[in-house]
Amino acid sequence: MDLPSKYLNEAVEQFASLPSIGKRSALRLVLDLLKRSPEEIDRFSNAIKGIKENIKYCENCGNISDDKKCVICANPAREHRTVCVVEDIRDIMAIEATRSYRGIYHVLGGVISPMDGQGPEDLNIPTLLTKVREDKIDEIIFALSSTMEGDTTNFYIYKKISPSDITVTTLSRGVSVGSELHYADELTLGRSILQRLPFESTFKSK
Amino acid sequence: MDLPSKYLNEAVEQFASLPSIGKRSALRLVLDLLKRSPEEIDRFSNAIKGIKENIKYCENCGNISDDKKCVICANPAREHRTVCVVEDIRDIMAIEATRSYRGIYHVLGGVISPMDGQGPEDLNIPTLLTKVREDKIDEIIFALSSTMEGDTTNFYIYKKISPSDITVTTLSRGVSVGSELHYADELTLGRSILQRLPFESTFKSK
Ligand SMILES: [Zn+2]
Ligand SMILES: [Zn+2]
Repeated sequence: MDLPSKYLNEAVEQFASLPSIGKRSALRLVLDLLKRSPEEIDRFSNAIKGIKENIKYCENCGNISDDKKCVICANPAREHRTVCVVEDIRDIMAIEATRSYRGIYHVLGGVISPMDGQGPEDLNIPTLLTKVREDKIDEIIFALSSTMEGDTTNFYIYKKISPSDITVTTLSRGVSVGSELHYADELTLGRSILQRLPFESTFKSK
Repeated sequence: MDLPSKYLNEAVEQFASLPSIGKRSALRLVLDLLKRSPEEIDRFSNAIKGIKENIKYCENCGNISDDKKCVICANPAREHRTVCVVEDIRDIMAIEATRSYRGIYHVLGGVISPMDGQGPEDLNIPTLLTKVREDKIDEIIFALSSTMEGDTTNFYIYKKISPSDITVTTLSRGVSVGSELHYADELTLGRSILQRLPFESTFKSK
């Protein structure tokens, strides 16, 4: 695709660098932007600048935050000794949207995936183990994707913290097997968090 | 969807304002940007700023351009008396990609669509009629979408320029009926421009 302007081309290249946006879609997006007022274009480009300049990560859980602690960790009404372990901040949003959960979170930043060269040391697992050692947790809920990598990661953490008095649970398998957590509908996800199971029961029965 | 940061929320709102990008997709795009370096984020936001500051429209044909005349109108090797009338600059790119056409273009900026309140005066039709009056054109090729609105627009322009010595042709109907031009594959589009028909023959046979 030959574009008639190098500035158009640069904007299209940038949009096409985003996941699942091809060159044709990128062009469509840029042509839509071109129809807008200079003020609207400024607002768009400033919003992008703003994410890097202003967004922080919660020092306690790894959630995105505008302050040192995220709105969840800063909320005294949450149960701070119940920790739901998730891959990604999108999973926090998905679980929060169900309004079924009153504990806090711990964001791993991914799952163990030898195929992608991602080991335990590349994830926020050490900080979770520190919280366990410092006796800050009563229950850990595994809410990773129900894929092989998710299961491996659950099991790795479980082994690292065993034996302990901590209750280790996992989401009930209402979440469809093999799919990523944040695609689950709210009802299924809400039910699976309310019906969470002792983690041991899920691999002993296999 | 409650987002944990107002800056994140603003960026997601902006992406979700683009055509066919929902809130979930927008979040996915912004989270991808968040992983990039500050330099990469800057490049993205500058590319967006750049489109409004730098992109011009060709004074002759309405194509996007970095100069007063676009690369096509500025090219002396093109046949400047053959004018292909298109809706949109994406159609120029689609036709150029076929390498079947040596004339120049005229971008209408849309088609006549009473349902959308878009009449002939909202399009670049007067400038086309001026070119006809000033005897600058030997052939007009209608390359609008093969929809009712496209046909109406063709016919409106045809009536305005008749009678005249100009050859008026239209793309052969290899382009699938009812679909937008720029979705056509290159082969079909290339063939339909080579086999273009006298415009009269298309409505007399109806
Ligand atoms: Zn937090
Ligand atoms: Zn031009």
